[in-house]
Amino acid sequence: MAPSHILTAFDDELKYLQRRISEMGGLAEEMVSESVSALVNTDTELAEKVIKDDLVLDEAEREIGEKAVVIIARRQPVAADLREIMGAIRIASDLERVGDMAKNTAKRVISVQGSGVPRKLAHGIEHLSELALLQLKEVLDAYTSRQADKASSIRERDDEIDAIYTSLFRELLTYMMEDPRNITSCTHLLFCAKNIERIGDHATNIAEMIYYIATGSQPQGERPKDDNSPAVGSDDL
Amino acid sequence: MAPSHILTAFDDELKYLQRRISEMGGLAEEMVSESVSALVNTDTELAEKVIKDDLVLDEAEREIGEKAVVIIARRQPVAADLREIMGAIRIASDLERVGDMAKNTAKRVISVQGSGVPRKLAHGIEHLSELALLQLKEVLDAYTSRQADKASSIRERDDEIDAIYTSLFRELLTYMMEDPRNITSCTHLLFCAKNIERIGDHATNIAEMIYYIATGSQPQGERPKDDNSPAVGSDDL
Repeated sequence: MAPSHILTAFDDELKYLQRRISEMGGLAEEMVSESVSALVNTDTELAEKVIKDDLVLDEAEREIGEKAVVIIARRQPVAADLREIMGAIRIASDLERVGDMAKNTAKRVISVQGSGVPRKLAHGIEHLSELALLQLKEVLDAYTSRQADKASSIRERDDEIDAIYTSLFRELLTYMMEDPRNITSCTHLLFCAKNIERIGDHATNIAEMIYYIATGSQPQGERPKDDNSPAVGSDDL
Repeated sequence: MAPSHILTAFDDELKYLQRRISEMGGLAEEMVSESVSALVNTDTELAEKVIKDDLVLDEAEREIGEKAVVIIARRQPVAADLREIMGAIRIASDLERVGDMAKNTAKRVISVQGSGVPRKLAHGIEHLSELALLQLKEVLDAYTSRQADKASSIRERDDEIDAIYTSLFRELLTYMMEDPRNITSCTHLLFCAKNIERIGDHATNIAEMIYYIATGSQPQGERPKDDNSPAVGSDDL
């Protein structure tokens, strides 16, 4: 928690940013959930809703960014307050990208509607998205409750999402090899799975930002998913 | 050009940020170019260099972000100066992601090395990366020369990259359908092509940020690539 201010108006401004971030987070979660539902049920109407909602999320990010700049110029905050505002900008940017991932998935609903999504694959995609959504929810809770320690434990659970993604990737390749007529739709599903997997990365970014806001430093140690290994890990699939 | 300051030290700080951004841009360009070269020549040594260079780019982004916060806290800039600093943070973030795209491509070199990249596909990927690099170069020149008008014309040329990407996507699907043994490597190439195509999006983001730094407002009108259409456009492939 940032130290309380004599300037109540300033507190209100910070709270406004926090509330807008939480709203963005809620909408982003809804979009992810609906995009996956639209995909597995080939519900084009729901897909179009997600695509429209992305405009709201884009606008919210722009507004938070502009508001943050105004607050910095007017209040000239330092230390924890400045980190709070800079962090809000970063988190808004990650949430906007989560929305993009949902939108990209929604846009592929039309491409797969001819063939539909095989039951087993649909199940895998739903499972992947549940894990990503759980991570997103926990990180948004950590933001609201200002629990930096909670945020750093979230950061350590991205491995689980990667493992599911990898098995889904292999399954999709098998479908493609079994019947070339599956190739086009499975390619779209591959990108959908990748989109969902990347939501976990954004949740991790947000967790790191919460830690930074609270402490002023980056979390110690490498991310558990070793992005820097030249060997082929799950994030290369 | 931001108005000149009586505080020369502040000018130096702004120039330092600009120089670091330019350096990041140069490294990002090099990484993109080398990652594609590593891919089409299955040069794992060069791929490993790109993967290592990404650490340098990540560190540069972190340093620019920290430096920017220190400058804001110390100098309490407003108007164009504040936009300049906020813009630097955003541009550094986009350049860091361009580096991620190059790293992701480099990491797939090992996955495709068994089968190699068919000549015709290699040519398509090289062409795509040349266009993306041209766009990145132009946007970095616009940043150095502070030409917001130049930046807004760049924003209108993303269509070209999308068209090449779409034709490459179709070609890759054809290869996969012709022979199931191509599926695994072609899937990796699909993700590589997508990575390169997304570099164009980052260049467009940077162009918009340059316009914002110079004018204080967002460029008018929708992006030429209509991300919001529910119909399947090239960015859905």
